[in-house]
Amino acid sequence: MLMSKLVGERTKTIPSEAVIKSHIMLLKSGFIKLVTNGVWTLSMPAKKIAENIQRIVREEMDAIGGQECLFPVVMPRDLWEQSGRYKSIGDEMVRFKDRNDRDLVLGMTHEEAAVHFVRDSVKSYQQLPFMIYQIQTKFRDEARSRGGLIRVREFTMKDGYSFHETQEDLAEYYEKVYEAYFRIFSRIGLKNFIAVKSDTGMMGGSIAHEYMLLTDVGEDTLIICSECDYKANMEVAECQPRINGYEKLLPLEEVFTGAAKEIKEVSSFLGGTSQKKIIKAVCYNLKGDTGKTVLCFIRGDLEINESKLKKVLKSDIIPADLLGTNIIAGNIGPVGIEESPNLKIIFDKSLDNCINMVCGANKEEYHLLNVCIKRDFSANEFLDISKVNSQDFCPKCGAKLKINNGIEIGNIFQLGTKYTKSMEMKVLNREGKEINPIMGCYGIGIGRAISAIAEEYADDKGLSWPMSVAPWKVYICALRADDQNIFLKASDLYDKLIKAGVDTIFDDRLASPGFKFADCDLMGIPIRLVISPRSLEKNIVELQKRDGSLKEEVPYEMCVERIIQLCRG
Amino acid sequence: MLMSKLVGERTKTIPSEAVIKSHIMLLKSGFIKLVTNGVWTLSMPAKKIAENIQRIVREEMDAIGGQECLFPVVMPRDLWEQSGRYKSIGDEMVRFKDRNDRDLVLGMTHEEAAVHFVRDSVKSYQQLPFMIYQIQTKFRDEARSRGGLIRVREFTMKDGYSFHETQEDLAEYYEKVYEAYFRIFSRIGLKNFIAVKSDTGMMGGSIAHEYMLLTDVGEDTLIICSECDYKANMEVAECQPRINGYEKLLPLEEVFTGAAKEIKEVSSFLGGTSQKKIIKAVCYNLKGDTGKTVLCFIRGDLEINESKLKKVLKSDIIPADLLGTNIIAGNIGPVGIEESPNLKIIFDKSLDNCINMVCGANKEEYHLLNVCIKRDFSANEFLDISKVNSQDFCPKCGAKLKINNGIEIGNIFQLGTKYTKSMEMKVLNREGKEINPIMGCYGIGIGRAISAIAEEYADDKGLSWPMSVAPWKVYICALRADDQNIFLKASDLYDKLIKAGVDTIFDDRLASPGFKFADCDLMGIPIRLVISPRSLEKNIVELQKRDGSLKEEVPYEMCVERIIQLCRG
Repeated sequence: MLMSKLVGERTKTIPSEAVIKSHIMLLKSGFIKLVTNGVWTLSMPAKKIAENIQRIVREEMDAIGGQECLFPVVMPRDLWEQSGRYKSIGDEMVRFKDRNDRDLVLGMTHEEAAVHFVRDSVKSYQQLPFMIYQIQTKFRDEARSRGGLIRVREFTMKDGYSFHETQEDLAEYYEKVYEAYFRIFSRIGLKNFIAVKSDTGMMGGSIAHEYMLLTDVGEDTLIICSECDYKANMEVAECQPRINGYEKLLPLEEVFTGAAKEIKEVSSFLGGTSQKKIIKAVCYNLKGDTGKTVLCFIRGDLEINESKLKKVLKSDIIPADLLGTNIIAGNIGPVGIEESPNLKIIFDKSLDNCINMVCGANKEEYHLLNVCIKRDFSANEFLDISKVNSQDFCPKCGAKLKINNGIEIGNIFQLGTKYTKSMEMKVLNREGKEINPIMGCYGIGIGRAISAIAEEYADDKGLSWPMSVAPWKVYICALRADDQNIFLKASDLYDKLIKAGVDTIFDDRLASPGFKFADCDLMGIPIRLVISPRSLEKNIVELQKRDGSLKEEVPYEMCVERIIQLCRG
Repeated sequence: MLMSKLVGERTKTIPSEAVIKSHIMLLKSGFIKLVTNGVWTLSMPAKKIAENIQRIVREEMDAIGGQECLFPVVMPRDLWEQSGRYKSIGDEMVRFKDRNDRDLVLGMTHEEAAVHFVRDSVKSYQQLPFMIYQIQTKFRDEARSRGGLIRVREFTMKDGYSFHETQEDLAEYYEKVYEAYFRIFSRIGLKNFIAVKSDTGMMGGSIAHEYMLLTDVGEDTLIICSECDYKANMEVAECQPRINGYEKLLPLEEVFTGAAKEIKEVSSFLGGTSQKKIIKAVCYNLKGDTGKTVLCFIRGDLEINESKLKKVLKSDIIPADLLGTNIIAGNIGPVGIEESPNLKIIFDKSLDNCINMVCGANKEEYHLLNVCIKRDFSANEFLDISKVNSQDFCPKCGAKLKINNGIEIGNIFQLGTKYTKSMEMKVLNREGKEINPIMGCYGIGIGRAISAIAEEYADDKGLSWPMSVAPWKVYICALRADDQNIFLKASDLYDKLIKAGVDTIFDDRLASPGFKFADCDLMGIPIRLVISPRSLEKNIVELQKRDGSLKEEVPYEMCVERIIQLCRG
């Protein structure tokens, strides 16, 4: 490729919403260009990086028996009705009508298409297990796209679907994918990543893992044990039971607390009572059933984990509308309040064995002191609906937990029979019994992988690509390209490198050395080759690696060989 | 790949709408599966063929300096408003709203996206020319999808866009693409294809070519000279002026013709008057302006070419509604009828110099005889609005023209400045003047190429793939795969072939020889390798080519080497 012809605007003007380094540098280098909110055009170098990532993904998927197919972007409503997701998925799915008024959707994931593809032809356990996958464009109408290619609406994704006779077989295959994903992320150059247990969300199923690049700018919160291998996404993270110290029971008392409603205000009104000694109340409505209020009690220093709460309720939730109820916001407490068809009460585990607590008196301007469970109210059970925090301890080994931010770069799910059951895919198992195959599904976003690599490697000068995914391995800077001798020698090296299979970009522009070096650094090409009047005089070229690990002079004649060596790593 | 695990239903049940051989065989082999009208899932072998085609397309595009990018499937209305196509394109473009009520479209072509991508960064003629291309999913809401992958709604397409300073530069580059397309179609194995001049339709621009696979089942009609290199799509095909013999002028006469209205009826009513001697009238309305009638006169043996007529009118047309006009359908003639603001009259070239013609008398049940232009009515000009037919002669060399059917497999357009002008892309030319770059655009549908190859090669037994695009090069039939010795030898060959880089599928199923041979033929794998108790006894394997050109026994030890030879050549 000739740099003079490369399309893509290298620019210094960056919009203010670009705050993380991968986003900034992908824009500055002209690798991506926004078309509309969450929808991007990839320039040639970005597309080359995507292809390099996809090649690695394909190799690893094929190595574990994956069959690459292609499912459509546009699907009929009917398919999604069969799985029940036409209704259960909200605004993030695009729905439209064709010219004959038939309902279509844009695929955001392809479980339905995968089951549709195989359910007529796979009829026997002998055809199981198998895994089909694709690398295809998807569209998810995200409310907030952000971070360049990190959270977008249109994206290219590798999504795989495996089908099994038994749960054991799925578990075994899941392990293979789990390992393959580690190989993929390592091969594309990521270093600081982990797999964490995660929530299965709208996918259904039970066991799931997310692969996370650890970085301060990640929007996911991860809980990681400082000692053992326990790692989980905040949504599912657990911890050791919190200990509530033993105290002598004191008599129940009602106190005037005036306008103090928030935990902090109550604590301060009461002269600095510890937040751990206050019972916090949080109310929700079930989504689609606003007549029912869910009232959650939790220790005042903790937060509700809405993912866990949704699982407990088996329903989506929205902030409660308390109008028309007799609940007094800011003064809610568990004493004297009863469950009813319109009111569900849930106690978090953190309240188990609490004594002498502060809580709302269910009366404007008043709280209760010294509230004790069992004595003052009853709780059927205590459920885990809290967020783990950095004060908590590992549920596995008891060591201190750390909190990290991360960017999700991949996910794997054990789906179970959610789709094969609803879509009526049946095979005969080895006992001759009709069963619904058990599925797993496995995703990697290609664009997000580009951003994740950029995020891990970029520095103040720009991007920096690992050799395995770099758009070009070598950037030839011809200084004084107007000098015919220089130009000819540089062209000669360019041709030789291309012939040797080394993907190379040749900066043939009439521009200053500083300008060329800056573009080379900004674009993050791993090896810079400088040829100049000075170097030609000495019959050498200068080689330098973008990561700073090498700077050397190589005889002109040895240069191609040396570069091949460096590319091999 | 193991045949026992290959997903995709090989079936004998073919729906009745599948009538052409590529469609039937792609279904029978389980290579494609319908998801909804015009929307397909590609199984692994079809996806492999697509990838092989795409690789060849990429190589040829890169060889002429193409830069592969990726434009989005989903685009904002705004972009298409800029080019004017949001309005000018009809129902075939999918439009929908996102969660914030903003209008989006699904891309059916990407001129807008290409201009959007480069217009801010390309500012000087020094950056020209360049060509950017992508291979991306598109959606076009076709009214009638048909023929498997031939006419679909969702498809993968390579679309390229070049930008030039001058028309000469575009013409020069266009020639390069023209040649590259010949190389592409040859390399993917097509033989019986040609390039024809074509209409530019909704793309705008002037010069365009379509690449056509010649086949009786094609839905396009092509005009080809029997002697010289003249070739054109029916929409734009021209011919030598038709000769109307000299006769003595006879006096104008009005005759009663009763219910005879169609050309055939009038001819027969008048005792067999040649259709060449009758003036045919055809009426249209301008689309979106039904107050205006367009009245076309043409020689009775010819048909109106609506594509040419649209160009003349610079407007889309619909069949005329004559209610409320004083035009008498079936008895229309040019004598005594005048153009007006509501009536436009067009004469086809075929009427130039006609004498003693029959035409309608503009009066129920009457026609005129011996009508002569100049004497009986006046025509300002004669325009070419006729369809060429097999009676016509080559406009270039005068030889007889042939009519062929074809499937369009690619197209190239000289677009001009339609998009750079409307979308305000400006660069400074070498005189320092601001100009709109001149564009070309270049498309190849990947799925349609699969169908075209299938159509050209398939026979009664099934598909047959050229080596360059075959999903697997070798199909190992292990007969008596339950014999451990056979199975081990076959597996050994399979491993060796894979290691040697020969893409191979191994039929490891416990099935009869006939069953395996049939699947191998149906799937169209170029080389069949049979290993059986009989062949092992002789220490050989049997090799056979799908195209019937080879059948031989090869010593077991020589087999891999021989296959590599066959794959190369």
